[in-house]
Amino acid sequence: MQIYGDGNSGNCLKVKWVCDRLGLPYRWVGIDTRKGETRTPDFLAMNGAGQVPTVRFDDGRTLAQSNAIIRYLARDSDLIPRDAFVAAKMDEWLFWEQYSHEPYVAVCRFQMVYLGKRASELDPEKVQRGYAALDRMERHLSTHRFLVGDAVSLADVSLLAYTRLAHEGGFDLARHGAIRRWIGETETCLGLPPAR
Amino acid sequence: MQIYGDGNSGNCLKVKWVCDRLGLPYRWVGIDTRKGETRTPDFLAMNGAGQVPTVRFDDGRTLAQSNAIIRYLARDSDLIPRDAFVAAKMDEWLFWEQYSHEPYVAVCRFQMVYLGKRASELDPEKVQRGYAALDRMERHLSTHRFLVGDAVSLADVSLLAYTRLAHEGGFDLARHGAIRRWIGETETCLGLPPAR
Repeated sequence: MQIYGDGNSGNCLKVKWVCDRLGLPYRWVGIDTRKGETRTPDFLAMNGAGQVPTVRFDDGRTLAQSNAIIRYLARDSDLIPRDAFVAAKMDEWLFWEQYSHEPYVAVCRFQMVYLGKRASELDPEKVQRGYAALDRMERHLSTHRFLVGDAVSLADVSLLAYTRLAHEGGFDLARHGAIRRWIGETETCLGLPPAR
Repeated sequence: MQIYGDGNSGNCLKVKWVCDRLGLPYRWVGIDTRKGETRTPDFLAMNGAGQVPTVRFDDGRTLAQSNAIIRYLARDSDLIPRDAFVAAKMDEWLFWEQYSHEPYVAVCRFQMVYLGKRASELDPEKVQRGYAALDRMERHLSTHRFLVGDAVSLADVSLLAYTRLAHEGGFDLARHGAIRRWIGETETCLGLPPAR
């Protein structure tokens, strides 16, 4: 399997983390989106949406969308709860991450890290919505060890990706003690060194 | 089961369509988001994200995020491909819908239908990204009857929700013949009357 990804992208790292956790062999193919490498005819033939991460399996089949990829790679593993309803609650977090968290927390970070903006130059609405997402996680994690069930799952993998880098998008997690506790525990479960 | 939803919301209608298609009994509870009905303590206790659709099962458990709900309700049905990889391609479309289609096609429609904006008052970037999403669907559907596999799946249910209403967001599908053909076929498969 080849993972086409950007090592600075949380969405791409989700795929790497799941492979490393489950011992799945892969070759990482570095892609620089800013150089148009997701807009070449070869890349668009793999993923018509022109986005990373995209994976290509040894038989030539391809799959895109970070959360769809990790859901496929982790099928039948302990990263997906066996109970169908608990797995559905995991899916609820996965879709929420892409709709209500990533477009704010990750996009603010993108604008600071990739585009060189200062925190004061960010769109205030994006910042407000990013904090709303972080506040919702804080409320949940103040009474739950992990996002669903009693063990780490893909919900934690997915939300960890940009939450652990929120400070790079100007977000201050000083009042988010439950999130900081959860980041450490999830990083430990995944065998990751601390993000900072 | 109770479906808390807004009958004008494509995201909410996805849940109704799947229930109707599979013969699942439910009670529809109308929610007016503009009156703050998703911000009450009772609603937030069901769904901390304060969004519709949200479903409450007879045992009191709740589930949110339209695509997570329909994925749970349709488990073990013919709306989810049996082959794990084809199901993963379905998931790819579900996540793409929430990240690259709904925030543009549905949001433009929301601004026109709910907020009374004219097409000329829409954010040009949202319009451009909406057309980019529709163009990608057009390319795929020009060589595929449905989005994945050879039968209707949740990928079609999910993308149908706002694609069939795109004209209400100012989008002109005149040059999207494959999409118009697919809308008709998917509506027929789901037993829906034409949107217009």
